[in-house]
Amino acid sequence: MIRITIIGSGNVAQHLIKAFSKSEAVEIVQVFSRKKEALASLVSFEKITDSFDSLQEADLYIIAVSDNAISEVSKQLPFQNRLVVHTSGAAPIETLDIKNRRGVFYPLQTFSKNTTIDFSVIPVCLEAENTFDFRVLEKVAKSISKSVYPINSDQRKALHVAAVFVNNFTNHLYQIGQEICKEHQVPFDVLKPLIQETAQKINTLDPIDAQTGPAKRKDSTTIEAHLEYLNPENQKNIYKILTQSIQNNGKKL
Amino acid sequence: MIRITIIGSGNVAQHLIKAFSKSEAVEIVQVFSRKKEALASLVSFEKITDSFDSLQEADLYIIAVSDNAISEVSKQLPFQNRLVVHTSGAAPIETLDIKNRRGVFYPLQTFSKNTTIDFSVIPVCLEAENTFDFRVLEKVAKSISKSVYPINSDQRKALHVAAVFVNNFTNHLYQIGQEICKEHQVPFDVLKPLIQETAQKINTLDPIDAQTGPAKRKDSTTIEAHLEYLNPENQKNIYKILTQSIQNNGKKL
Repeated sequence: MIRITIIGSGNVAQHLIKAFSKSEAVEIVQVFSRKKEALASLVSFEKITDSFDSLQEADLYIIAVSDNAISEVSKQLPFQNRLVVHTSGAAPIETLDIKNRRGVFYPLQTFSKNTTIDFSVIPVCLEAENTFDFRVLEKVAKSISKSVYPINSDQRKALHVAAVFVNNFTNHLYQIGQEICKEHQVPFDVLKPLIQETAQKINTLDPIDAQTGPAKRKDSTTIEAHLEYLNPENQKNIYKILTQSIQNNGKKL
Repeated sequence: MIRITIIGSGNVAQHLIKAFSKSEAVEIVQVFSRKKEALASLVSFEKITDSFDSLQEADLYIIAVSDNAISEVSKQLPFQNRLVVHTSGAAPIETLDIKNRRGVFYPLQTFSKNTTIDFSVIPVCLEAENTFDFRVLEKVAKSISKSVYPINSDQRKALHVAAVFVNNFTNHLYQIGQEICKEHQVPFDVLKPLIQETAQKINTLDPIDAQTGPAKRKDSTTIEAHLEYLNPENQKNIYKILTQSIQNNGKKL
């Protein structure tokens, strides 16, 4: 059994505790949290501590706190030369204090509170400073997920930016779709199956091959009619810039 | 049994033939197609005709041809005062020749060849010039789909524009995500579960409430770092304009 201590009590920490509790390869030794109540239903009370000095020995310490707290928390750990990782997609491995052996354990997903998550389908991106530590992280990750990837800090940065496009920006396009529906008294529900199918299609087809629509077929009559139809300036601008980008596909701009 | 004739042999026509063949409420009387081979596996040979003059009487004629052919095909029909509909999201009901009773039977989905489609989850948007005809279309639609909506020509136009945002443009954002991954040697597969979750989330949450990320939380440090990181100009521009749109959310521009 790999002995793990989790530091933090937010969404990521909670989902990790739930996933590890079901794993037979790991044991949660302790959880560090200043808010003991938040974890009451997840871990037995005597395992929760709010003092760094009472942290026991473990094979792996997972710092699951907000990005801007990682550095400070890693400095406060009262030990050295142990394996310490953070769970952030945005922070480089160097954010962690150098007194310990460093790594990253980054589950790539948006976690919401109170939702059940099937951790087995969530990709876990791993980085470590040496092979032995990487193997430890790999064992831990594989005990809760089927998708485990070695991802260094530069790759993780790329993933983080790409995730902004496929998650944040995509969701904003859904919102614009809903706004257009509302303005014309159409139930947004009509569009939901199309949204699901668009996402599912790329499981079997590269996005560039799945592309359809007026921009792709350079149907300027329809494009003009759509621009005419749209009211808010930002919808028009987004329509223009994405249409242009689809039409220039393949050409480096 | 409602007797239906389908005019056309493309994707939509083929998927409709498959769906109607399983329905107990309708009967396919004839299919008009200039390419009989395309339909060989779907409908018995004697039901296929390539002559308008040999079209028999039916309760409903569904014109499933490309947008720019609808008008011409509807003019060529050698009868009048029968119920004739098209299947297009972009064409108004008036595209059909006025000599017949007109309507629209628009399944809102992207149809690809050779893919099996569960028609029961595809929203069908209906329009007719009178209530009796609408009821006929409704019976037909409900015999193959669980989601049937009355949608007039203006609403259908809104849907079509909104679909460009949630389907065409979203798919292009997937493509950019893949490009960023490729550039940094990250397998695009790592992002696929996130893409699925982003789409699924809006089944239970309004997009505006599901929004997360640096733009939403006005994290200018991360936004600057991402813009610095992106290479191609079009990726930078799309990042900027969508970030701005998310930050201005709610304010009419």
